[in-house]
Amino acid sequence: MTLKAARVLAECGVVAHFAASGRPGNSTLTIADHLTDVHIVERLEYPLTTEPVGSQQYADALDVFYTEAAQRLAVHLDAGRSVAVVSEGDPMLYGSYMHLHVRLADRYHSSVVAGIPAFSGATAAAGLPLVWGRDHVRIVPGITDLALLTEAAISGDALVLMKVGRHLDTVRTALTDAGRLDGAVYVERASHPDQQILPLAEAPSPAPYFSVILVPAASTSAAQPSPPKVPSS
Amino acid sequence: MTLKAARVLAECGVVAHFAASGRPGNSTLTIADHLTDVHIVERLEYPLTTEPVGSQQYADALDVFYTEAAQRLAVHLDAGRSVAVVSEGDPMLYGSYMHLHVRLADRYHSSVVAGIPAFSGATAAAGLPLVWGRDHVRIVPGITDLALLTEAAISGDALVLMKVGRHLDTVRTALTDAGRLDGAVYVERASHPDQQILPLAEAPSPAPYFSVILVPAASTSAAQPSPPKVPSS
Repeated sequence: MTLKAARVLAECGVVAHFAASGRPGNSTLTIADHLTDVHIVERLEYPLTTEPVGSQQYADALDVFYTEAAQRLAVHLDAGRSVAVVSEGDPMLYGSYMHLHVRLADRYHSSVVAGIPAFSGATAAAGLPLVWGRDHVRIVPGITDLALLTEAAISGDALVLMKVGRHLDTVRTALTDAGRLDGAVYVERASHPDQQILPLAEAPSPAPYFSVILVPAASTSAAQPSPPKVPSS
Repeated sequence: MTLKAARVLAECGVVAHFAASGRPGNSTLTIADHLTDVHIVERLEYPLTTEPVGSQQYADALDVFYTEAAQRLAVHLDAGRSVAVVSEGDPMLYGSYMHLHVRLADRYHSSVVAGIPAFSGATAAAGLPLVWGRDHVRIVPGITDLALLTEAAISGDALVLMKVGRHLDTVRTALTDAGRLDGAVYVERASHPDQQILPLAEAPSPAPYFSVILVPAASTSAAQPSPPKVPSS
């Protein structure tokens, strides 16, 4: 967590966080030390839905959920209370907060505090330089289909696979086909006490949703004096 | 800065930071409040070189510089002093720290503390959701040649152009050719008191080195209920 986020938490009367149905919510662990008795906590629990991810019914259920969540926060805002919405990772990079932002930021003052993206936590945990000089990075969600994954892998760009979960085998197939399984690192729950760092070849499948795969760029920029190295730890 | 970075600074006897020749170093502003009289500060000043960026002479001069910098820190490490190397942004994403890491991490215990990448600071400052659901991100250095820039822009992926500097016009041309100038946001010195946020069409050229261009993904994932919106601020 950043010093700025800690300041904002101390200043806001209401703290909202997302949580999977029936789970405490990852972000609550991070902020636990910063909550006091005077904070009002709004738990925004994703709906259980039996609809498949990607279906219109699923999208509709989420739309209702985000709209209702925004309304709950609007009640506090209308009453003059400041609301901090906690994000795990970077709020503007696939963050659930964005769904509240687009529903509220045109009516209320908003200020977004940058956070550490999951992949930055993962490269730090693994001691793995990701890109040098002229290299490119592609951030690709695990749900991407095999052909697109393979195309991205063949590019030679550094790759960050996010939200890997049940797509780990597909990702591993794409990287293997592209000749990039070597050097691919699996990082689960980076910066948490139970973090796991493994060569992708040895990673469990399915993986937890909050797992990341890192593949440093295949080519070192001609402008850089040193080749990337596999971390020694 | 993160709470963890602040803790590490407090615990390390030596604080090293990179700086351009003749400049104070951006990161020194960030850490000023965390330095005490007992800290030994190692300023690692890039060499002035008249060789063009990308030439072998330039690469050689940098190689010598990084090797000598690593040796300076090794003297402290050998004496039992812990050394904190300050990075602006994410150390493993184009960070100068990586050049020390590959020279020292196999001989000394190292622990990398994740930082906020420049683009995360920029999306937060601009209130700009970058990617949703199944969207991809490409992080591309400004020095990339026009054909590759245009190819990346045509993809429809969210784009993050880093280290823009004197390449701003080339980047703007590529985005214009790809029909993505609208929605492209220029962010200079995000989170600093003098930050600038402008539509790319109105951005200065050349830009400072530490400027970022953000282009949200062209397509909204079918799995997402809400389209991205241009920020209201």
